[in-house]
Amino acid sequence: LTSVEDGAADYGLLAPVRAGSPVEDATGDHAFLQALLDAESALARAQAALGLAPAHAAAAIDAVARAELYNPRDLALRARAGGNPVIPLVSDLAAAVPEEAASFVHRGATSQDIMDTAAMLVARRTRGLILDDLDRTAAALARLAAAHRATPMAGRTLTQHAVPITFGLKVAGWRHLVLDARDRLAAVVLPAQLGGAGGTLAGFGAGSRGGAGYAAAVGASVGRRGNDDVLMLAERFAVETGLAAPLVPWHVLRTPIADLASALATTCGALGKLAADVLVLSRTEIGEVEEPGAGSSSAMPHKANPVRAIMIASAARQAPALAAVLYGCLVAEDERPAGAWHAEWQTLRELIRLAGGAAAQAAALADALEAKPGRMRANLDSTRGLIASERLVGVLERLLGRRAARDLLTRASREAAEQGVELGDVLAEASALTGLVDRKELAELLDPAEYLGAACALTDRALAREAREAP
Amino acid sequence: LTSVEDGAADYGLLAPVRAGSPVEDATGDHAFLQALLDAESALARAQAALGLAPAHAAAAIDAVARAELYNPRDLALRARAGGNPVIPLVSDLAAAVPEEAASFVHRGATSQDIMDTAAMLVARRTRGLILDDLDRTAAALARLAAAHRATPMAGRTLTQHAVPITFGLKVAGWRHLVLDARDRLAAVVLPAQLGGAGGTLAGFGAGSRGGAGYAAAVGASVGRRGNDDVLMLAERFAVETGLAAPLVPWHVLRTPIADLASALATTCGALGKLAADVLVLSRTEIGEVEEPGAGSSSAMPHKANPVRAIMIASAARQAPALAAVLYGCLVAEDERPAGAWHAEWQTLRELIRLAGGAAAQAAALADALEAKPGRMRANLDSTRGLIASERLVGVLERLLGRRAARDLLTRASREAAEQGVELGDVLAEASALTGLVDRKELAELLDPAEYLGAACALTDRALAREAREAP
Amino acid sequence: LTSVEDGAADYGLLAPVRAGSPVEDATGDHAFLQALLDAESALARAQAALGLAPAHAAAAIDAVARAELYNPRDLALRARAGGNPVIPLVSDLAAAVPEEAASFVHRGATSQDIMDTAAMLVARRTRGLILDDLDRTAAALARLAAAHRATPMAGRTLTQHAVPITFGLKVAGWRHLVLDARDRLAAVVLPAQLGGAGGTLAGFGAGSRGGAGYAAAVGASVGRRGNDDVLMLAERFAVETGLAAPLVPWHVLRTPIADLASALATTCGALGKLAADVLVLSRTEIGEVEEPGAGSSSAMPHKANPVRAIMIASAARQAPALAAVLYGCLVAEDERPAGAWHAEWQTLRELIRLAGGAAAQAAALADALEAKPGRMRANLDSTRGLIASERLVGVLERLLGRRAARDLLTRASREAAEQGVELGDVLAEASALTGLVDRKELAELLDPAEYLGAACALTDRALAREAREAP
Amino acid sequence: LTSVEDGAADYGLLAPVRAGSPVEDATGDHAFLQALLDAESALARAQAALGLAPAHAAAAIDAVARAELYNPRDLALRARAGGNPVIPLVSDLAAAVPEEAASFVHRGATSQDIMDTAAMLVARRTRGLILDDLDRTAAALARLAAAHRATPMAGRTLTQHAVPITFGLKVAGWRHLVLDARDRLAAVVLPAQLGGAGGTLAGFGAGSRGGAGYAAAVGASVGRRGNDDVLMLAERFAVETGLAAPLVPWHVLRTPIADLASALATTCGALGKLAADVLVLSRTEIGEVEEPGAGSSSAMPHKANPVRAIMIASAARQAPALAAVLYGCLVAEDERPAGAWHAEWQTLRELIRLAGGAAAQAAALADALEAKPGRMRANLDSTRGLIASERLVGVLERLLGRRAARDLLTRASREAAEQGVELGDVLAEASALTGLVDRKELAELLDPAEYLGAACALTDRALAREAREAP
Repeated sequence: LTSVEDGAADYGLLAPVRAGSPVEDATGDHAFLQALLDAESALARAQAALGLAPAHAAAAIDAVARAELYNPRDLALRARAGGNPVIPLVSDLAAAVPEEAASFVHRGATSQDIMDTAAMLVARRTRGLILDDLDRTAAALARLAAAHRATPMAGRTLTQHAVPITFGLKVAGWRHLVLDARDRLAAVVLPAQLGGAGGTLAGFGAGSRGGAGYAAAVGASVGRRGNDDVLMLAERFAVETGLAAPLVPWHVLRTPIADLASALATTCGALGKLAADVLVLSRTEIGEVEEPGAGSSSAMPHKANPVRAIMIASAARQAPALAAVLYGCLVAEDERPAGAWHAEWQTLRELIRLAGGAAAQAAALADALEAKPGRMRANLDSTRGLIASERLVGVLERLLGRRAARDLLTRASREAAEQGVELGDVLAEASALTGLVDRKELAELLDPAEYLGAACALTDRALAREAREAP
Repeated sequence: LTSVEDGAADYGLLAPVRAGSPVEDATGDHAFLQALLDAESALARAQAALGLAPAHAAAAIDAVARAELYNPRDLALRARAGGNPVIPLVSDLAAAVPEEAASFVHRGATSQDIMDTAAMLVARRTRGLILDDLDRTAAALARLAAAHRATPMAGRTLTQHAVPITFGLKVAGWRHLVLDARDRLAAVVLPAQLGGAGGTLAGFGAGSRGGAGYAAAVGASVGRRGNDDVLMLAERFAVETGLAAPLVPWHVLRTPIADLASALATTCGALGKLAADVLVLSRTEIGEVEEPGAGSSSAMPHKANPVRAIMIASAARQAPALAAVLYGCLVAEDERPAGAWHAEWQTLRELIRLAGGAAAQAAALADALEAKPGRMRANLDSTRGLIASERLVGVLERLLGRRAARDLLTRASREAAEQGVELGDVLAEASALTGLVDRKELAELLDPAEYLGAACALTDRALAREAREAP
Repeated sequence: LTSVEDGAADYGLLAPVRAGSPVEDATGDHAFLQALLDAESALARAQAALGLAPAHAAAAIDAVARAELYNPRDLALRARAGGNPVIPLVSDLAAAVPEEAASFVHRGATSQDIMDTAAMLVARRTRGLILDDLDRTAAALARLAAAHRATPMAGRTLTQHAVPITFGLKVAGWRHLVLDARDRLAAVVLPAQLGGAGGTLAGFGAGSRGGAGYAAAVGASVGRRGNDDVLMLAERFAVETGLAAPLVPWHVLRTPIADLASALATTCGALGKLAADVLVLSRTEIGEVEEPGAGSSSAMPHKANPVRAIMIASAARQAPALAAVLYGCLVAEDERPAGAWHAEWQTLRELIRLAGGAAAQAAALADALEAKPGRMRANLDSTRGLIASERLVGVLERLLGRRAARDLLTRASREAAEQGVELGDVLAEASALTGLVDRKELAELLDPAEYLGAACALTDRALAREAREAP
Repeated sequence: LTSVEDGAADYGLLAPVRAGSPVEDATGDHAFLQALLDAESALARAQAALGLAPAHAAAAIDAVARAELYNPRDLALRARAGGNPVIPLVSDLAAAVPEEAASFVHRGATSQDIMDTAAMLVARRTRGLILDDLDRTAAALARLAAAHRATPMAGRTLTQHAVPITFGLKVAGWRHLVLDARDRLAAVVLPAQLGGAGGTLAGFGAGSRGGAGYAAAVGASVGRRGNDDVLMLAERFAVETGLAAPLVPWHVLRTPIADLASALATTCGALGKLAADVLVLSRTEIGEVEEPGAGSSSAMPHKANPVRAIMIASAARQAPALAAVLYGCLVAEDERPAGAWHAEWQTLRELIRLAGGAAAQAAALADALEAKPGRMRANLDSTRGLIASERLVGVLERLLGRRAARDLLTRASREAAEQGVELGDVLAEASALTGLVDRKELAELLDPAEYLGAACALTDRALAREAREAP
C-alpha cells in the first residue's frame, strides 16, 4: 500500500474544479497504473492468442495485472532512472509472475507501447464520463431554453445593452456549443499503440514455438525482412485493449494526442462560454440568473458566489495552454523524441481532468440554474426604450429620411438619458413626428418584447439539433 | 493607393517562412479588405434577391466592392474609433455608391457579421492553397517512401541508435501525418455569419417593400416577434458568399474558429515533425538526407543549411501558442465579447500564414529531398553490430537462458565498444556460445538489414492510404 | 520603393489596438530594416575605430545605411533562400558602396549578429515610447485616484458585492500595477550582439593593417588561439549601437529575449487588469465609469462601447501566448538553433506592438476616464445595507454571541432581500436587539461609507510610490 | 490520515522529472496544507501581538496548525462548495481549538489572504531548494568549463558544422544562463497577503479590547473611515510569516505571481538549453558527451539514453505554457476575479515543480557529465579542414582578391568533399596559390585548433562572473 505520510502526494486540494469528479478518479495514479497493467496483460493475451506466448503465461500476467498490487509512489521514484514508469513496472510484474511466465512479460514491447496504450485507455474511460456530463448539460440546457424560448432580456455587446434577445436563444446557444464539443470529443479515434523498439514490430515473435538450438531460435525471430505476420499481433493487441487498431504505429505520429487536445480544449472553451455568461448575469447589479445554493459566506450573508461557473472558468483559462503543449509535442523527432513524449503525460492527464471537472460542474450548474425573468425585464426597461432604438431608426428613416431621423434620435436619446424619462415620451413631443407617429405607437415600437427578431425561431432551430449518439 | 512611405507597414521581412507564398498574398490587408467588401456585396445581393433591397442598390454596391478603391492604412487608422475596420469601411462604401443606394449598404448588419464572414472567406481561399501544398507534399513523400521502401537506416530513440528501420517507413510516416493534417483541415466547416446587432436578425427587413407612412414603415420592419423570414436571408447570404449556412448565428459560438485553430496547429505540427527529422538527418555527422541547393554560406563553403526545414520548424514553434489564444477566445461573454473577438483577427491570420507558409516550404522540401543510402548504411554499421542486439537478445535467451544471455551480451557489447571491434567478433570468441552459433551466423544475426521487422509491410500499408478528396 | 500593389502587405487593418501608435511605426519593416542597417554601420564604425577597417569604408557604409534605399518586400522574398533577411541586405549593401568598401561590409559578422542587434535597437527605441505611455497612464491614474480617494463604491468579489471600497483605492491599484510593469520594462538590459559565425569572434580581425604576402595575411587574422583583442571590438560595437555590452555573446543565451518577453507580457497584463475593471464598471447596469466619446453606434444611439478598454483587453489576451513562444526559444540548441531563433522575430515584434498599443490606449483612457460617484453610491445602496453586513457581523457577535448573531443576520438578510426593504429596518424590529442597538445606530453601522477600512490610507500609500526614473 | 485507497491521488507517476525531488515534497498537498495553516497561525499571532486577539487564542491556533491533523482529500472535496480549500479548513481549525479561541480563527480575513500567503510560503520554501540546485549546477559547470577551456570542438549552427569553438566556451555559456535564471529567481519579491474581504482591511480590528455593550462593540471595529492602524497588522502579519510586507494588498495586483512565472519559466528554459545541447552531443553519431550510468536498456545493451537531459527537456516544453496561464491571470477583474485566481493555484504549483525538478536533474547531470575530447577532435576533423574555411577565406582574399579567393575555395571544397581528401591537399595543388602558400602553411591555417578566436578569453570572462548571494 502507498505510504500515506508522503508529503509529495496530491489529493486535489488545489483543483476544486475536478476534486471528487469521476474523471479525477479515473485519471489518478492508481487508475493510470491500472491502465499500464491492462496494456501489459492485453499484450500477453494477444501473443497467446497468436501462439507467440503460452496461454498460462498470459493467464499468469493477467492475474497480477491489478493496480493494488503495486506501489505507485515507489514506481514514480524508480521511473527516474530510465525516464518512464513502465521500466520499473515491468520489473515488478516479472517478479510477480511465476518464473516461467516472466520472460513473456512485456515481450518485444517498448515502454512507449505501454505508456501510449495506457494513455488511450485512460482517455477512452474518461471520455465516456465526460460525454455523459456533456449530455446531461445539453439536456438540462434544452429544458431551460425551451422554458424561456420567448423570455425577453437585454442583448449585450461590448458590455453595453444592444438590442433585445431572449434568454431561450442564449441558452440554446450554450447547448449548441456543448453539442459541438460533444461531437468533437466523441469523434476522436483512440488507437492502441504497438511498435516495439523502433516502430517496426521487429521484437515481437521470439515466441513460444517449439524446437531447440540455433535454427529454432532464429526461426522464432520475426526480425527477418518480409516477416510481416506481426501485423496481426498489432491488430489483436488493439482488440484485446478495446481500442482502435491504427494503420501504423503512431509513436511519433501523434495525431491521436493532438485530436484529444483539440476536443478537450474545445470542451473547456465551450463550457467556459456558458460560465462567462452566467458570471455576467449573476452580477449583483444584473441578477438575471442564480445558481441556487451557490457559495455563501457567513460574514457576508448577502453573497451568493456563482461557484460552479467560477470553477468552470478556471478550467477554461488553463486548458488552451495545455493543448498548446500537446500541439508542440507533435514535433517528435526520430523514432522516439527526447522530451516531447515525456511532456505529454502530465499535460494530457491534466487537460482531461479540467475538461472532466468542468463538464461535471456544468451538468450540475445547468440542472440548477434559475432564470429571473423579472430582473431581465427590469434591466431591459432600465434604458427607457433605448434598447429598441435600432428598430426606431429603421422606421424613422423611412418617415424622415436618414439624416433627419438619426439627428432626431441622437438628440432625443441624450435628452431621455439625461432627464431620466422614456425615449418615447421625448419623441412624442418632437415636432418632426407630429402627425406621423403618436405616443402609443412610439411606446409599442420601443417595447423590447416586440423587437426580438427571429430569436424564437432560432431557438427552435438550435433545439432541433439532435444530440449525437455516443461512440 | 496606399502611401508607401509609411513606416508601419509589414512586407514579410521577419517571416521568411511565408514571404512570397500564395497564402501570404491571400491574407494580406488588401486580401482581407476584399473579403470584407465581398461580404458587404453578398449581403446586398441576398437582400435584393429576397426583395429586401432594390436590385440597383445591390448592383451599385457590387460595383464598388473592389479593394483597390479603398486605402487599408486609412481604414486601419479610422478603425480605432470604433474598434474594428468595418465601421469606417461602411462609411466609405456608402459614400462610394449613388445616394439612393447608400442606405442599403450594410443594412441591418453589425460589424461582426462582416468581419466573421470575411475571416471565413479568407480561410476558405487559403485553405484551398494549403490543401494543395499538403497534397503536393504527400505525393512527393509517397514517391520518396516507395523508392526507399527497403533502405535500411538506424532507428533512433531518445537520441540513441535503437534498432534498424527503413527510410521508407520514416517517410511514409511523414506522409501519414501530412494526410492527417489534410483531412482535418479539409473537414473544417466554414460558415457565413449573419446575426445583426444581437444575433436575432432583428435588424434585417426594413427593406424596399413599397408603401409610405407609419404603417408601411412598421410593416417593413422584421422586428416583430415571430417574424422569422429573415432566416431565409441568412441562408441566402451564405449562398451568395459561397460559405456554409450555419444553423444559428455563431457570433459568440466560436466553434468554427476553434476548429480552424485545431486543424492549422495540427498542420504546423505535422510538418514540424517532418522538419525535425530532416534537421536531425541533415546534421554534419549524420548526413543521411540533403536538401539540394540548401542555404549556403560564402564564408563557410562547406555549409548547407537545411533552410526549408528550419523555416518549417520556426512555424511549428509559433502555431501552438496562436491556437491557444483562439481556444481562449471561445470564452466569449454576452452577445459580443469585449476583447475576445478582437484578439482573434490577427491571431487567426498569422496562424493561417504559418500553416500556409510551412505547407509551401514542405512541398518544395519534399520534392527536392535526397536520401543518402550510403551514409545510412555507414551509420548503421558504426556501432559494429550493436544496433541489432535486440535480435540477438531474443536468440541468445533461447540458447542460454535469460540471465546468462543478457550478462554475456552486456559484457560483449562493452568490450566491442571499448576495443572498437565488431560485436559479432567478440561473441564468436565467447566460450558460452561454442558449438551453438558460429561467426558467420552471428554476423548474419547482427546484420541490420536483416532485422527490419515489418518495416516494409508497414510502409506499404501507410502508402496504401489514399489522399482524401478536396472538399 | 516598395511596390504598393502587393497584396501581401499589412497596414494594421486587423490590429486597431496598435494601428497608428508610435510603437507601430517604430516596429514596421522599414523601421526594422533601418535597425539592421544601423547595426551594419555600427560594426563598420567600430572596426574603423579600432583600425580593423579604413575610415573611408565605414563612412561609405554609413552613407548608404538608410532604409529608404532598400526594398523591404524584395528583401523579404530573397530572405527565403538563406532563411534570414540579413543575407540579401548585405548583398545590397555591398553593391551600394564603392568597390573598395565592399569587402568591409558585414566583415567577420554572422547574420545573427545583425538581426539580434537590430532587434535590441528596435526594443530600445520602442521601450522609450512604451515607458512614456506608461508614465502618462500612471500620472493620469494618480490624479484620478487622488480625486476619488474617499469616493465609496461597491467592492466586488467573484462577481458579487462584497464590502465597500473606494474608487481611489481601485485606481491607485491600477497605477501600482502600471508602475510595476514600468519598472520591469525599464530594468531590462538590452545588449548588442557580436559573436561571428560560432560566437568566438574568430572572424573579426582580417582588418586593414598594411603589409602583403602570406605573413601579413595571416598576421591580420584574429583566428589564432589567444588573440583576444577582438573583445575590444565587441565592446566598441556596443558603444556604437548605444546598446549595453554583454559579458559574452548571447546568440544562444537568450535571456535578453526572455526578459523582454516577461516585461512586455507583464505590461499587457497590468493594463489588462485596468481594462477588465473598466469593462465591468462600464456595463449598462453598473455605469460607474465612462470613457467620454467612446465608440458610438448610429443605429443604437444609446451605446457607448468602452473601445479603448476593449482594445487593451484584446492585447492582454494575445500577449501571454507570444511570451510563451519566446520562453520556448530559450531552448536554443548548438551555436545557432534551427528554428528557435527564427521563431523569435515576428513574435517579439508583435509582442512589442501589443504592449505599445495597449500602453498608448491606456494613456488615453486614463486621461479621459470619468467616474460616476452617483452611480457608485446608488449601486452601493442597491443591496439595502447588505454590503456592510460584514461589519454588523462583528458588532452583533460581540453583543449576542457568534451563533445567535449569525442566525439573526442570515434571517434578516433574507427577509430584507425578499421584501425589498432595508436590512437595518428589519433588524430594528428584531426582539433580540431590543435595547442593544437602535434604528439610527443600525443605519449608521450599515452605511457603506462608514465601512471603508483603511481604503484611504492604502490609497495614500500607493500614491506615495514614486514613478521610477526612465533608464 | 488520508485514505490510501483513493484512486484520485497522484504520486508523481507521470512526472519523473520531479518525482522524489525536494521541491516535489515541498509542494504536495500536505506541504500546501501546512502553508495554509502557517498563514492562519501567523495571522492569529500578529493579531495577538497587536492586542487584537488574546495570546491564548493565538497559542491555541498555533498548537493545531499542523498539517497531519487534517485530511487533504477531505478538504479537497469540501473545497468545491465554496470554491477554495480555506473555507473547510477554517471550519476544521475552529473545531480543533477550544471554544474561546474559535472566534479568533481566520478573524477578519478572507480566503484569498490565506491562499495567497500560503502560495508565497510554498514559493519561498521551494525557491531556496531551486536556488541550491542552480548553484550546484553552476558550480559543476564552472569546473567542467575550466577543465575544457581550450578543448576544441565543432561549433554547430543550423545543424551544420560552422567554425571551431571550445567545449569550455559552450559550458561557460550554460553556466551563464543558469546564473541568469538564478539571479532572476532570487530577485523575486515574495510578499504576504492581507486585505480582508475587499482589500481594505476593514474586517480586522473587532478585537479583544475590553468593554461591553454597543459602544465597545463598535469601538472595537476598524471599519470606520480613517481608522488606519490595521496597516500595522498587515505589516506584523508579514513579519510573522517571514515574507515581505507589500505596499498594498495584491489580491488583484498579481505582479508577484507574474514575477514568479517569469523567473521559473526562465529557469526551465535556461536548463532546457543545457539539456538540448547535451541531447545533440549525446547522439550516437556525435558522442561528444556522456552522462555516465545513463538510462540503459537490457534489450539494447548499447543504448545509453541521456535520461536527465530528456527529463529536463520535458520540463522546458511545459513551462512556457504554464507561465502564459499565469500572465493571463494578471487580468483579474474586480476585487477578486471569478476564475483567474483559481486558475493560478495548480498552475503555479506545477511550474514550481517543473523548475525544481529540472534544477535537481541539472545539478546531477552537471556533476556527472563527461566530455569526450577525442570524439570532439574526430568530429572536427571529419570535414577535412572545411570547418576552418572561414579563416582561409580571409587569408586568401588578401592574397587573391575577393572573387578569385571565393571561387577557388568553392571549387576546392567541393572537390575535397567529393574525393574524401583534405581541403589543404586540394589547395596545395592549386596553381593560383603556387608560391603564395605551401602545403604546411595550409595545414596550419586549416587546423581547427588554431581558429578558436577569443573562445578561451570569453570562457574566462564568463567564469569570472560570480554566483550571486542567496536572498
